[in-house]
Amino acid sequence: MTVKTIQVAQNALDANREIAVQNRAALDSAGVVAVNLMASPGAGKTSLIERTVAELKGQIRIGMINSDTSPAAMDAERAERAGAVAVHLNTTGRCHLDAGMIRDTIACLPLREIDLLFVENIGNLVCPAAWQLGTHLSVLIASTPEGDDKPYKYPRMYSGADALVINKIDLLPYVTFNLDYFRRGVEALNRGLRTFPLSCRSGEGLDRWLDWIAFLAARETAVLQ
Amino acid sequence: MTVKTIQVAQNALDANREIAVQNRAALDSAGVVAVNLMASPGAGKTSLIERTVAELKGQIRIGMINSDTSPAAMDAERAERAGAVAVHLNTTGRCHLDAGMIRDTIACLPLREIDLLFVENIGNLVCPAAWQLGTHLSVLIASTPEGDDKPYKYPRMYSGADALVINKIDLLPYVTFNLDYFRRGVEALNRGLRTFPLSCRSGEGLDRWLDWIAFLAARETAVLQ
Repeated sequence: MTVKTIQVAQNALDANREIAVQNRAALDSAGVVAVNLMASPGAGKTSLIERTVAELKGQIRIGMINSDTSPAAMDAERAERAGAVAVHLNTTGRCHLDAGMIRDTIACLPLREIDLLFVENIGNLVCPAAWQLGTHLSVLIASTPEGDDKPYKYPRMYSGADALVINKIDLLPYVTFNLDYFRRGVEALNRGLRTFPLSCRSGEGLDRWLDWIAFLAARETAVLQ
Repeated sequence: MTVKTIQVAQNALDANREIAVQNRAALDSAGVVAVNLMASPGAGKTSLIERTVAELKGQIRIGMINSDTSPAAMDAERAERAGAVAVHLNTTGRCHLDAGMIRDTIACLPLREIDLLFVENIGNLVCPAAWQLGTHLSVLIASTPEGDDKPYKYPRMYSGADALVINKIDLLPYVTFNLDYFRRGVEALNRGLRTFPLSCRSGEGLDRWLDWIAFLAARETAVLQ
């Protein structure tokens, strides 16, 4: 008789990956570019979406899946007021999104009316990194008051990102944040990572980010794979 | 034949609770008051421990278990330089501490030489809430740049706390943080929660926190249960 080993975690990740592949196909078929937006709580995910939607209104049609661990839907409402097609996803306490949640949510979205979809993950610098959603790109937001040591402490999030936003640069005079030390930590994990230092509050540095988002939305999704 | 339902998650939490009870007994037997310190990444857990250790040096003996998802031990080194007995716990990617990790770590600490032990949890506003460690008290740190909506979005962390620190009040002139809105959110979850608004950077508000920590360290641990 052979002892059977049950690999719950690995099986869950394998099942998740299969659904992520289906999500990608659904997004591609509708011509939607999807961005998985990850960060600590309060780093500025919603603020960045809100500013991006408002600035690119009339130019590209933006959708937003806003996730929270609670029924509080104020972030989705903010994005909607700015002009996005927004939906709130309550994970009821769960610490990250998975592909199944995204499958169920995109089924409720008018994908044909969306060029670019922001998937705002749960505010968490650990768990979201392990779960593919089927999005085309992962963008990580750091923020200056969090401190310059985060790449060293949460390496998996930094190594898996396709682009990095450094938000709240307007606070640099008031916080301890050594940009060189931070960048060295990032470079060691993810060489040449595309980086956007900016402030959602003051608007400084937003132009480059907006140009890149508009560029992404105009691409054929096949090019992004 | 009866179908057997396997409750992996619940069993894990039950097993964890048993070890937490053993941890509490070990701490009580050594006369150590233990505080589970939780927060978002970068809210100021290490800064608060560092300031507390430096200010109370010669008055109470402070220990620190510093956890991170990576081998980066700089936070433990900071606390040690300030005068704490500090040890680094690498969770190798795991998103929260559990009672087993604490059992293995306190076995390496000179508990008889410690009056108060800070257990610095992983920077995470979701997962740590579910896992008892055997500590006597849970302290949550919020920080003003994270925004005033966190109690509404991460209710479980706020409802389970025994005390709340609002750090980085020196940044209030430069960030959007409505203290009344924040407090209403906290009150709805945890009425009368003991709260310490302060700044680890400027030192404002630290006195009340230090008085409370010194008071805790002087208590018989039995009183705290």
